[in-house]
Amino acid sequence: MTVRKIEVRERVMARNDELAAQVRDRLAGHGITAINLMSSPGAGKTTLLERTLAVLAEPLDIAVVAGDVQTQNDADRLAAHTGRLVQAIVTGGACHLDALQVNDALDHIDLDKTRLLIIENVGNLVCPASWDLGEKARVVLFTVTEGDDKPLKYPKMFEKADWVVLTKTDLLPYVPFDMQRAVQNCLQINPKLRFIQVSAMSGHGMDEWFDFLRQSVGPMAGV
Amino acid sequence: MTVRKIEVRERVMARNDELAAQVRDRLAGHGITAINLMSSPGAGKTTLLERTLAVLAEPLDIAVVAGDVQTQNDADRLAAHTGRLVQAIVTGGACHLDALQVNDALDHIDLDKTRLLIIENVGNLVCPASWDLGEKARVVLFTVTEGDDKPLKYPKMFEKADWVVLTKTDLLPYVPFDMQRAVQNCLQINPKLRFIQVSAMSGHGMDEWFDFLRQSVGPMAGV
Repeated sequence: MTVRKIEVRERVMARNDELAAQVRDRLAGHGITAINLMSSPGAGKTTLLERTLAVLAEPLDIAVVAGDVQTQNDADRLAAHTGRLVQAIVTGGACHLDALQVNDALDHIDLDKTRLLIIENVGNLVCPASWDLGEKARVVLFTVTEGDDKPLKYPKMFEKADWVVLTKTDLLPYVPFDMQRAVQNCLQINPKLRFIQVSAMSGHGMDEWFDFLRQSVGPMAGV
Repeated sequence: MTVRKIEVRERVMARNDELAAQVRDRLAGHGITAINLMSSPGAGKTTLLERTLAVLAEPLDIAVVAGDVQTQNDADRLAAHTGRLVQAIVTGGACHLDALQVNDALDHIDLDKTRLLIIENVGNLVCPASWDLGEKARVVLFTVTEGDDKPLKYPKMFEKADWVVLTKTDLLPYVPFDMQRAVQNCLQINPKLRFIQVSAMSGHGMDEWFDFLRQSVGPMAGV
């Protein structure tokens, strides 16, 4: 029973990796940079994305694949800012996006008019870490309200990430969160991680986040 | 491929339900009430549990099965308050506890000296909802920093829950969270849900939470 389960899982993962490679080739063919945005539920992915689209949707030709939607709410919030939004609704208790869903979503996006693809994954700090979506960079949002020990408790997500965006920094005065310890905990899991601190509410750090996105776009992208 | 995956998943779930029924019988045989505590990462499960054990570990003969530990930190925090703590470490990116792990954990607990078993599930608002652990009640922690739309985005967790504990209420003045809308969103998914509001930091609402646990223990338990 267990052996069978593992066998099937391995084949499913191998198939996903093949599809992710296809997605990566397809995006490269159009000069598109893809970012896989992951976090716990409620870490602020949609709000960060809303603020981002308001400023950069046009200048960076951003398209969005949003997986974190069981409701229409998020899609409506994002659609106000970009004409190129595709929902990949995950049903039946699915806990992550996979490369097949992203590949299907690309069929509905004008890739010639896209430079940056942002994939908003399902709110989950465990499962999405295992699924390659063909992205160039993985960004994990880490909220100061979650506690500075989270990288040690959910190591795979931080091990596989390229960037950590610490969100809701406006709440720092009210929560027991040691920023220095949080960064140390991240680096203990993955010494190559880079960091941005933002508050989408106050606007703090948003310029740095925008600069990161601007630099990630184009053939010489350095993400 | 997909068919095979679904077949295996169905058999795994069916086997889990059998084991959960065994756990339920085993607990009933000892007059033990089990509570399955679930939430997003960083919603405050461990802190709530720490405060709870400090007050009720002895009077209610509480034992704990903690699944939300990739590190020793949480176990150390909880072990300071109860001699009956069993870690069920979930490895390899596992995203939930299952009934087999709980059944195995029970072998290491003195069931004759236990009245209340608290199962601290993995921090994840998706996957744990699908796995019966033999509990009597499911409690989902819902933090005010997550946003009041979370029940609509993660409906299965709220559909399957019995109680919602709204945590970190001390942060309400600093976050855009409408408590009335949050409760309405919960009830839209599951009209039978009951609610407790707490702040483990300020102590607000903790008496109500303690009363819920006291009432849940014993042969006439009303959870």
